Amino acid sequence: MNVAKLPDGWESRGKPPTLFRRFVFGRYNETRDFLDALAALTDEAGLHPQNINFASTYVNITLDANDSGELGEAELSLATRINQLYLKKSD
Amino acid sequence: MNVAKLPDGWESRGKPPTLFRRFVFGRYNETRDFLDALAALTDEAGLHPQNINFASTYVNITLDANDSGELGEAELSLATRINQLYLKKSD
Repeated sequence: MNVAKLPDGWESRGKPPTLFRRFVFGRYNETRDFLDALAALTDEAGLHPQNINFASTYVNITLDANDSGELGEAELSLATRINQLYLKKSD
Repeated sequence: MNVAKLPDGWESRGKPPTLFRRFVFGRYNETRDFLDALAALTDEAGLHPQNINFASTYVNITLDANDSGELGEAELSLATRINQLYLKKSD
């Protein structure tokens, strides 16, 4: 299986694999905006992260493998779209 | 120092002490509503949790000790108000 290159900043952890990335922010309001946008994105994608863990200036996101225990197209594309949210936040 | 009785469902962990509680929900929408109400409450109280860790049907909240390393009035009252949010959610 050709392990697709992981989206920037994400790492694969554990078995079955999950995708993990830590997003850091300068101020609570930026974190808050990112969380709100993330909620809207995951609702629209119909794919909710295995876990989201945050405080005032960071958000740790863990995405599940799919039902066949792999990081498939949907997971990789969600991670990519979350990256785009983060880039939009900091410009 | 008279250790005030901890608000229902919360436990004190570690040194300096933090307050911890796990809130469980039947559906993602309930979790989402609780998180939104929690954000508004912590903004208003001006006291942000040390960490919030959630997935579709649970929210784990950890509150910091105050600057003198104690669980003071502000921390205990925030925990109590978060309990009230949760009770309102499930009635």
